[in-house]
Amino acid sequence: MASVEIVTIGTELLLGHLVDTNSAYIARELADHGIDVYLKHSVGDNARRLETLLREALQRSDGVIATGGLGPTVDDLTKDAVASAVGTTLEMHAPSLRAIEDRFASFGRSGPIGENNRRQAILPAGAFVLDNPNGTAPGFVASRADGKFVACMPGVPGEMKPMLRDALLPWLGTRFGLQSAIYTRTLHTVGIAESEIDARIEPLFRALENPKIAVLAHGFRVDVKIMAKARDAAAAQDAIAPVEAALRERIGAGIFGVDEETLAGAVLRVLGERGLTLGTAESVTGGGVADAFVAVPGASSVFRGAVIAYDNALKTSLLGVDEAVLREHGAVSEETALAMARGARVTLGCDVALATTGIAGPSGATPGKPVGLVWLAVADGRGATARRTTWPGSRDDVRRRSVTAALNLAWRHLEKEESQPASATKT
Amino acid sequence: MASVEIVTIGTELLLGHLVDTNSAYIARELADHGIDVYLKHSVGDNARRLETLLREALQRSDGVIATGGLGPTVDDLTKDAVASAVGTTLEMHAPSLRAIEDRFASFGRSGPIGENNRRQAILPAGAFVLDNPNGTAPGFVASRADGKFVACMPGVPGEMKPMLRDALLPWLGTRFGLQSAIYTRTLHTVGIAESEIDARIEPLFRALENPKIAVLAHGFRVDVKIMAKARDAAAAQDAIAPVEAALRERIGAGIFGVDEETLAGAVLRVLGERGLTLGTAESVTGGGVADAFVAVPGASSVFRGAVIAYDNALKTSLLGVDEAVLREHGAVSEETALAMARGARVTLGCDVALATTGIAGPSGATPGKPVGLVWLAVADGRGATARRTTWPGSRDDVRRRSVTAALNLAWRHLEKEESQPASATKT
Repeated sequence: MASVEIVTIGTELLLGHLVDTNSAYIARELADHGIDVYLKHSVGDNARRLETLLREALQRSDGVIATGGLGPTVDDLTKDAVASAVGTTLEMHAPSLRAIEDRFASFGRSGPIGENNRRQAILPAGAFVLDNPNGTAPGFVASRADGKFVACMPGVPGEMKPMLRDALLPWLGTRFGLQSAIYTRTLHTVGIAESEIDARIEPLFRALENPKIAVLAHGFRVDVKIMAKARDAAAAQDAIAPVEAALRERIGAGIFGVDEETLAGAVLRVLGERGLTLGTAESVTGGGVADAFVAVPGASSVFRGAVIAYDNALKTSLLGVDEAVLREHGAVSEETALAMARGARVTLGCDVALATTGIAGPSGATPGKPVGLVWLAVADGRGATARRTTWPGSRDDVRRRSVTAALNLAWRHLEKEESQPASATKT
Repeated sequence: MASVEIVTIGTELLLGHLVDTNSAYIARELADHGIDVYLKHSVGDNARRLETLLREALQRSDGVIATGGLGPTVDDLTKDAVASAVGTTLEMHAPSLRAIEDRFASFGRSGPIGENNRRQAILPAGAFVLDNPNGTAPGFVASRADGKFVACMPGVPGEMKPMLRDALLPWLGTRFGLQSAIYTRTLHTVGIAESEIDARIEPLFRALENPKIAVLAHGFRVDVKIMAKARDAAAAQDAIAPVEAALRERIGAGIFGVDEETLAGAVLRVLGERGLTLGTAESVTGGGVADAFVAVPGASSVFRGAVIAYDNALKTSLLGVDEAVLREHGAVSEETALAMARGARVTLGCDVALATTGIAGPSGATPGKPVGLVWLAVADGRGATARRTTWPGSRDDVRRRSVTAALNLAWRHLEKEESQPASATKT
């Protein structure tokens, strides 16, 4: 199997000022094309370290895919190191220089381009050039005499991703004569602990080589991923289907969706199937729950909108929360959460409403109401229920977890509704 | 200078199913403590590859800090590889076993713990144990005879971060006898291109060794980071202050904040200084703009709330947008954006209101209104102005960029207001 290493370049990465999202994206695309990633590395803007790393990687693997170090800044040392690692030198690449000049001309700039931009057209001799329609710096693949290679792309994701898809992956397909790929299908669960899922599926897990199964926890959500190596999508589907059926039998109702489907998407899907509409009334989450729903393509057929009543006066004027409730129980209380959810149904004209109110911190705690206390509520035509939660961590942690918990509450509410006679009522 | 390498462990990382945020966090903490990160690596759950990587890293650097591979799953091979790399063997660590048993007992579980959890207490002989108050798997530091070491922490950020802060960093401080650290100060700018900032500060940039300057673009925002290596915070401040002054002189009014301050935070700060309140009326951004404001601690003194009018009927009922405006110009139009912003001031009772309406895709385009078209508006007591934007990319890209553009519009509005006589009016 073709095997490469990914190298992300930039001192910012070693200082932790930048989270490397490029390498995960590249790894996913490579996996889908059946190319194994042997190791990933990050290295600073240091020509000697980079060259050593590249030489070592080319000993272990068939090639290196690198991002970063190609921008119009003064500390660009990448190309020197790459040329040296593959045993060549740098030279001006005339077509790339013209492409850079054309790009500047298209922006309406006249006159010669600056030295920084000219330098972007200097490439290892004999390199295969990867066009960059979204920026000035071209990418390139520099190959050693034995065919091992270093591919370099810009670090800006908006430039790297199209270059990978339209230029580098086709080149890799030819280079490796690719015949098979890894296909994945991911089952998303909520409400079951990772260890519980592990226990339920371990016998299956142990027996399997292809497809493989991986369990991955993301807070409330636990994913079960099926990975099949196959010739094509149809063969992968044949391999995955019986494993998925076996997993569904063992895991049961906790599975809310597959692959790209989010919990918000699943809630919208089930509501849509039942012909119901949704809205939210938010305080502590500040629109985060609404945003999760609007992120779902086609949300408008179910999701109507939201009232973000951060100020207490708006809880009364827009959501009809009784001032006496706020006075007696406080804005962060079961009573207020229930009143917000009920009020949202009226104000927004929706069938089901979610509400959030809490104390994200760092200030705002009162006796008996610590930072991290959040009340969630869901209301429908039959009544409303609330749930008290407390979250550790920062303001961001509390708010993020509250959004997920609100989605979780909605999902469990829909599951429960399904198994309940229509005459049941709650208040 | 003490120098380590960071290794993140997990096949999921090489498949790109997980973005590694741990290593950036660890790198930042290490930099703050004056420890240099020489390289970062990700490796799969493969004992042989991990051991080879660890052996090579210990040749180059003083130690390795690893995360992942310690969870209660069946594919745990990390500890074997670590023990082997430092030349020791595994043994049951009795205090860690008791800690795991106590943790389960505290959850109300009785009886013996399972084999998977028992295995978590098996550690390299002689290891220094890093307590894990937030999970079952303890971390540890296994040292070679010559003092070079491999530190292992769980991959779950909520367990890793406190362990790093409370157990590993103190250990590293003792191990390296740390005397100096790198201190950073970051100036955030908006509205100036990266290349323009580069050009303005390059003479300064070239001349400096300590502090160093780095320029980093994040979409609309361009950061200029000053990094000083110093004995303590006071010495760092002395080194940074004159460089910051020189940068401010060259960059000017585009600087909206420093360090942790966000654009939303800067908008709230300036509004607060002027005694004004804020609200938003959102459609395409679905609460994302409101959420950016609520993310700022203390937002409640300025930010009142929002109306998310995703459904057109709510644009009329809650924001007072004339049905005729929606009929004649459409929901995504200058007229609707202006009416939403004006209406939000009334409904939310705020001084300044932002509005967003657009087509995030993938569906929803109409002749003359492509996917990616977004109208933004800002209204205050003197009138309202709108701005037309078009964004490439996915639904997420369009929505995310619209949130930033709305914040950008608010900031530019505040800058302009400041330099304008109070009698000026716009409609």
